[in-house]
Amino acid sequence: MQGAIARADWIALDWGTTHLRGWAMTADGQVLAHNSSEHGMGRLTRAGYEPALLDLTQGWFSGKVIAIACGMVGSRQGWIEAPYASTPCMALPTGLVTAPTSTHGLTVHVIPGIKQDKPADVMRGEETQIAGFLALNPGWDGVLCLPGTHTKWAQVSAGEVVSFQTCMTGELFSVIGTQTVLRHSVSADGWDDDAFAQGLADGFERPERLTARLFSLRAEHLLHGQDAVAGRARLSGLLIGVELAATRAYWLGSQIAVIGAGKVASLYVTALAAQSAPAMQADGTAVTLAGLTAAWRRLQGASA
Amino acid sequence: MQGAIARADWIALDWGTTHLRGWAMTADGQVLAHNSSEHGMGRLTRAGYEPALLDLTQGWFSGKVIAIACGMVGSRQGWIEAPYASTPCMALPTGLVTAPTSTHGLTVHVIPGIKQDKPADVMRGEETQIAGFLALNPGWDGVLCLPGTHTKWAQVSAGEVVSFQTCMTGELFSVIGTQTVLRHSVSADGWDDDAFAQGLADGFERPERLTARLFSLRAEHLLHGQDAVAGRARLSGLLIGVELAATRAYWLGSQIAVIGAGKVASLYVTALAAQSAPAMQADGTAVTLAGLTAAWRRLQGASA
Repeated sequence: MQGAIARADWIALDWGTTHLRGWAMTADGQVLAHNSSEHGMGRLTRAGYEPALLDLTQGWFSGKVIAIACGMVGSRQGWIEAPYASTPCMALPTGLVTAPTSTHGLTVHVIPGIKQDKPADVMRGEETQIAGFLALNPGWDGVLCLPGTHTKWAQVSAGEVVSFQTCMTGELFSVIGTQTVLRHSVSADGWDDDAFAQGLADGFERPERLTARLFSLRAEHLLHGQDAVAGRARLSGLLIGVELAATRAYWLGSQIAVIGAGKVASLYVTALAAQSAPAMQADGTAVTLAGLTAAWRRLQGASA
Repeated sequence: MQGAIARADWIALDWGTTHLRGWAMTADGQVLAHNSSEHGMGRLTRAGYEPALLDLTQGWFSGKVIAIACGMVGSRQGWIEAPYASTPCMALPTGLVTAPTSTHGLTVHVIPGIKQDKPADVMRGEETQIAGFLALNPGWDGVLCLPGTHTKWAQVSAGEVVSFQTCMTGELFSVIGTQTVLRHSVSADGWDDDAFAQGLADGFERPERLTARLFSLRAEHLLHGQDAVAGRARLSGLLIGVELAATRAYWLGSQIAVIGAGKVASLYVTALAAQSAPAMQADGTAVTLAGLTAAWRRLQGASA
């Protein structure tokens, strides 16, 4: 098995705060092997990156290999800082930074994030997904929504990220549901489509009432016996509704794509559809790999 | 000393989730002694209330005594449930509930909270403060703001609570500043008036952008070196600005009083003043005691 895959032409790495994911790749973009670990940036000291990478890629290469990495690995607290490109800029920034390695033949290039001066905003990792989406959908113009802990909305035109905006929706959902008085009224799982739709409408139509609506979820539970599964779905709808109100200038009248194949991405597609804004959905891993592949190809082109 | 105060005519109790505060009172409303403990509702089983009260009031009475309590002590998880009165209702609800005691001569009456059916909302403890404010300011009509973990806005007319609304501003400030990525960009203390004013304007004028503005605080720190003290004040301003936008229908054109003497209450007065809405400020402990005294007097009147 190790022999069979000891011929990776290059290695693709998605290296975030909590996880490290890697793929052994051929020159023509095929995946030979995949592995992941919890050696995210948050758990590593600077000296820990190279061992974490070698552990992940055991048997994938012998001799020379290039790895291309995106994500928080390039932050100030990461393996090596890859300074942000500034908007407007190509979705796949130039200026890859090479991490210090001691393993013979191993070269690791880190893709820079993108920053926006005003309103101040930053991304690391999503720029690679955006580049991958554009590689898979050449000539596409419009708005990309990348849901997550910190959801990104990016206006893309002619291959460039023109502007973007981050909403802390995912992280707020998590802390409000588990760390405030609402933890008694919001379940850890389960779902209720009607409650989501109700929360969504409340949040979108009266976003300024968010902090009041939140306490209503508690009071609805105390006074009217609203169950905690409905509470969870209403909280999600409320926060996504407020986010759509905040980002209306982005998505209104634009072509929209939501990156991600899971439940959360589907909620954004549902929420946008409720505002008569149809959105396509693209697989998150596929666009990440496409973006890393685009970066590798550009490197090959440059060195050819 | 114990002898000197063993003549309380009655005992006033403010019994919340985290703290118990008590006052030994004379029949004409003078305070003989004061004590407090951390025996809040959150730390007590049902059997623990009476010992906690006896511990707090050692030496305050011998023979018969009446205690009047407000706050979470009357919740379902408290000493005894004092069912909510429903809006519209007198600020000081009737229907006090007597807690079960085994100490000879000790009678404990618990003041009910107030509920509102739609939008669903609840208060426990604040109704007593509102009643106390009205006892100290007879005939006052307008809107009372009671800042705290869960800030209450109450519309008061002819001695009644007509409607009210709770905003989770205080609790959001706490969890966002300590449990999210903003903890790196928001200090635990310190203050910056200009940053507060900026956050306030942002939150009030564009409340729908809250979740985006929150991430901006992080990005401003990363990109422009905004210090964490300014981050703290901007976060506070942002959340209070959004709250003022949510409660505009309450305070716009109304007579306003903010309950509380501390920093947080002052921030609300400053924030309202920035919207050309002058507010008076009343001491929180004074209105609590006045409300408990009003309840005691009514009981005396009823039994006379």
